[in-house]
Amino acid sequence: MAQRCEDLGERRLVRRVAEILGISERDDCAMVEDGENYLVWTTDMLHRRADFPEIATGWQIGWMAAAVNLSDVAAMGALPTGLLFAAGIPPGTEVEYVEEIFAGMKDCARTFGTRILGGDLDSCDELTLVGTALGRVERDRVLRRRGARPGDLLCTTGTLGGAGAGLRVALEAEGKGIGSDPGLVALTRRLLEPSPRMAEGRALALSGAATSMMDNSDGLVLSLYELAEASGVGFLLQEEMIPIDPLVALVAEDREDALDLALTAGGDFELVFTLRSDRIGDAADACGLAVIGTVAEEGVILASAEGTEELRPRGYDQMKRPGR
Amino acid sequence: MAQRCEDLGERRLVRRVAEILGISERDDCAMVEDGENYLVWTTDMLHRRADFPEIATGWQIGWMAAAVNLSDVAAMGALPTGLLFAAGIPPGTEVEYVEEIFAGMKDCARTFGTRILGGDLDSCDELTLVGTALGRVERDRVLRRRGARPGDLLCTTGTLGGAGAGLRVALEAEGKGIGSDPGLVALTRRLLEPSPRMAEGRALALSGAATSMMDNSDGLVLSLYELAEASGVGFLLQEEMIPIDPLVALVAEDREDALDLALTAGGDFELVFTLRSDRIGDAADACGLAVIGTVAEEGVILASAEGTEELRPRGYDQMKRPGR
Repeated sequence: MAQRCEDLGERRLVRRVAEILGISERDDCAMVEDGENYLVWTTDMLHRRADFPEIATGWQIGWMAAAVNLSDVAAMGALPTGLLFAAGIPPGTEVEYVEEIFAGMKDCARTFGTRILGGDLDSCDELTLVGTALGRVERDRVLRRRGARPGDLLCTTGTLGGAGAGLRVALEAEGKGIGSDPGLVALTRRLLEPSPRMAEGRALALSGAATSMMDNSDGLVLSLYELAEASGVGFLLQEEMIPIDPLVALVAEDREDALDLALTAGGDFELVFTLRSDRIGDAADACGLAVIGTVAEEGVILASAEGTEELRPRGYDQMKRPGR
Repeated sequence: MAQRCEDLGERRLVRRVAEILGISERDDCAMVEDGENYLVWTTDMLHRRADFPEIATGWQIGWMAAAVNLSDVAAMGALPTGLLFAAGIPPGTEVEYVEEIFAGMKDCARTFGTRILGGDLDSCDELTLVGTALGRVERDRVLRRRGARPGDLLCTTGTLGGAGAGLRVALEAEGKGIGSDPGLVALTRRLLEPSPRMAEGRALALSGAATSMMDNSDGLVLSLYELAEASGVGFLLQEEMIPIDPLVALVAEDREDALDLALTAGGDFELVFTLRSDRIGDAADACGLAVIGTVAEEGVILASAEGTEELRPRGYDQMKRPGR
């Protein structure tokens, strides 16, 4: 019987396609030589039903569509040059809703120092937003997924698990609205109004202290597997050092559940990166960060008071979505 | 009652969105300053049902998705730097079919001197391909939609109407296949394997003879309305000079029908451009072209043996698709 995409799964399908196209390395952005710089360049496709909970406003949908692309530019240590958007819109959509979406995109782009320069409008059955972002970074400053070496420190910006907890709140609120509890509202904003770590990514690149970097859009553990493969290394995570978003406690059943959200839920759009251990001071000057472990020879291992366990590559798979 | 996108139509919706984003001029690509060059940059969204007839093979779908983006780069007089693709794939799709699509993209990119550098795979209900292409052109050579002046010659590359005639063949063939008639097969290839006018666009830019340019992806007449608006001019088309694709005769009911296909059907991906009248020799050295009229003060007028008529802006509207 013919093999189908859902049998193969997203990551193996990506590998198959990359082989056809002759793409040997994957980073958050593609790279194009441009004099002393690289142009870095990314694209992301989002769909109304799969990528946005029911409670998302048009403005939030637009914001997020810009943010996910800018996060990829940030993850290369680049400055953003601009964005384009292809938008597939069901013809029956209210014009005002479409205007809100584009206002959200515009506000996100402006907030992070760039602009939306153009795009393509199309009609389709399900609202589909495909952004593409361009940035520039000096050739000797670019940060890639490869470059981590055993002994380096493993770090993250911000806190983890907030977007995953926000998704629980959003799914719970379907059909009845989210209410006015400020903690729950804040959690859904973690999910729906992510802040790409533009300034942090750039400062880390300029610091010269980081050895590899990516964003954690599909969850921390999957990101570590990507970094591990690209760099030919492993990671030893320290459980007690993982900066779980304090708001996660509002929805997590217990400490284990909170940790699981921080490790595997997608959508936080923080930067995960490795540092030369002697440059931690320069990196900490560059941006707020948390050291969460070290680069090891192999494996993705979590160390806690109870001992160590190998973490499975668990997270978001586009081709094997729950409920499909 | 709230206004809906289908009431507004594609072009007015585009204008509304452009206003929100602060985009004052539209060309086939957005432009970004890059030292002595412009980076030119475009994105196009295509859907399985709306943009490809049933008979299209996976390879043809991939080819076309690359070609439509490269045509926009060609229309600026730029050299292509690379392409990215976001692909939304129904999870039940056969892996082999997806591989064919990417092989088609790759073959098109290679044929026109460039590469696919990366992208994003996503799942969705309907196959959706969104390409983005990047190119470079010298600042003093870039060709835009504005720049046409009364007295300039109006020209097109290639022939017109072939893709529209190919669409008729393709729709007729639904459910029963296309057969082996070489003329009909050739017509469907006009539609499904368009050749972006990369070399022609570049040569015209370097010639210095052209004053404005765009591709005719939505049909000649709509393209002329776009050029007219951007340049603040009009056009006087000469009916007998319009180079109707000779294969159109295989499906057209009569001369009038053939002319209608040449004027209004989309998908030919030829370049429409204007020339200083004293530089026609340089332009003809640069590429094969047909003079089809002149730049006038206003209106889009067709002159024939029977007299003149104003052409209505008739062509493809994404928001008002027949049958939806």
